[in-house]
Amino acid sequence: MSAGTIYGLGLGPGDPELMTVRADRLLRGARHVAFFRKAGRKGQARQIVEGMIPESAVEFPMEYPVTTEIPVSDPEYNRLLSEFYEESAAHLRALAVAGEDVVVLCEGDPFFYGSFMHLYTRLIEDVPVEVVPAITGMSAAWTATGTPITWGDDILTVLTGTLPQEVLTQRIKDTDALVIMKIGRNIDKVRRALQEAGKYDAAWLVEFAAMPGQTVQRLADAADKVTPYFSIIVVHGQGRRP
Amino acid sequence: MSAGTIYGLGLGPGDPELMTVRADRLLRGARHVAFFRKAGRKGQARQIVEGMIPESAVEFPMEYPVTTEIPVSDPEYNRLLSEFYEESAAHLRALAVAGEDVVVLCEGDPFFYGSFMHLYTRLIEDVPVEVVPAITGMSAAWTATGTPITWGDDILTVLTGTLPQEVLTQRIKDTDALVIMKIGRNIDKVRRALQEAGKYDAAWLVEFAAMPGQTVQRLADAADKVTPYFSIIVVHGQGRRP
Ligand SMILES: C[S@@+](CC[C@H](N)C(=O)[O-])C[C@H]1O[C@@H](n2cnc3c(N)ncnc32)[C@H](O)[C@@H]1O
Ligand SMILES: C[S@@+](CC[C@H](N)C(=O)[O-])C[C@H]1O[C@@H](n2cnc3c(N)ncnc32)[C@H](O)[C@@H]1O
Repeated sequence: MSAGTIYGLGLGPGDPELMTVRADRLLRGARHVAFFRKAGRKGQARQIVEGMIPESAVEFPMEYPVTTEIPVSDPEYNRLLSEFYEESAAHLRALAVAGEDVVVLCEGDPFFYGSFMHLYTRLIEDVPVEVVPAITGMSAAWTATGTPITWGDDILTVLTGTLPQEVLTQRIKDTDALVIMKIGRNIDKVRRALQEAGKYDAAWLVEFAAMPGQTVQRLADAADKVTPYFSIIVVHGQGRRP
Repeated sequence: MSAGTIYGLGLGPGDPELMTVRADRLLRGARHVAFFRKAGRKGQARQIVEGMIPESAVEFPMEYPVTTEIPVSDPEYNRLLSEFYEESAAHLRALAVAGEDVVVLCEGDPFFYGSFMHLYTRLIEDVPVEVVPAITGMSAAWTATGTPITWGDDILTVLTGTLPQEVLTQRIKDTDALVIMKIGRNIDKVRRALQEAGKYDAAWLVEFAAMPGQTVQRLADAADKVTPYFSIIVVHGQGRRP
């Protein structure tokens, strides 16, 4: 019997019509469907494909052991997460060894800051793994603003809101086009960095890009707003254009 | 009679299975299909959708007036291109005003260094324009390397090979994860910059990502290689991973 394949299935930013033809096909034929979620939540990736999974498919939710209870800097945080990824990978590996294909649902593009990467590195030596790329959240975000992100030889920098404020400020100053991901509770720090770098008024906030409830507004018009996990800030490049 | 819509239709990196469900649907129902190409060439975007356009569709190839005959710095280059975009936009505008929908084929994601952006800015005030995002060439490139591009709070910088060598060197040094686009005849400059920045041995060259003829190799193993237009260099981030 030959081993099954584990598919890191990129779903894109949220709209099921923005899934690839390949992802759509693999999903509709899936026998095992795994996905990450926070305890007590449905899971964003799972939500995207609501109604698209065959009734007969076996679902395997992988629940994060920690989210915000323990600080990221605590070694215990790392230990708990590592154990969680090991156990999840072990389950998928066993299915593949038994000859079963497994589809792992990934929000956006799997290899771009994706949780699947932690399973991937633990599985790739042992069983067949295939990654299906997808539209990133940032592509959906800049598309939603109705303005192109990069022209000519614009430099694009992608930052995460988790970086220290002085790093953010310097990087924001130094780039032509800008994307900031993982904002959430880092929003105030990100605002200050954009202000220090003189780009606050050029910044756009996109919440839930290509998802139900999408909003697009100038960051300056969203003062005091609590930004959801699925938020991206964009500053458009101004490069050469004939 | 109401105006037609002009669709900036992102096709993704090349494999038709990596088109979105929406792009696939719009394409198969298209009555007018426009695309850019170099004189005497089939056109990359047109090539991707070979066999997918309805027989009855009217095709409108938009042929670049200049490619490499005139240096980019010559004002004449700019004038010729600007005139070309004006004329192309005028044709599409006339179709939309006459009530016709038009699909404009775009390689990769339309708003990410795409030629369609030059039509978009000329049309958006006049007629309905919709942009369908897509997988970028760089997503296909890092997927092809089999290694994730960004972890934790890795900073990703996207550069174009058209930048001056000292700018390239500095930026390559300063980033965690790196993508270099528009390489072509800039390959030697890009190599020198990567060497100066101490990242030459970590660089991967991906040609024709998700296209027929895809190659993936360490840049160091591709010495003296002439790189095609569809080439991307990738240096993977090494950020936090539990
Ligand atoms: C762990 S990263 C995953 C990124 C994903 N793999 C991608 O390709 O976009 C999560 C962050 O991505 C961003 N994000 C992803 N999709 C988004 C969407 N549809 N709308 C807004 N933000 C999104 C948010 O900044 C969020 O904090
Ligand atoms: C004018 S830009 C267009 C980028 C496109 N809109 C995208 O989203 O990737 C052209 C450059 O994109 C890169 N590129 C785009 N698609 C590619 C692919 N499938 N394989 C390799 N390089 C690609 C190459 O570096 C090329 O010089």
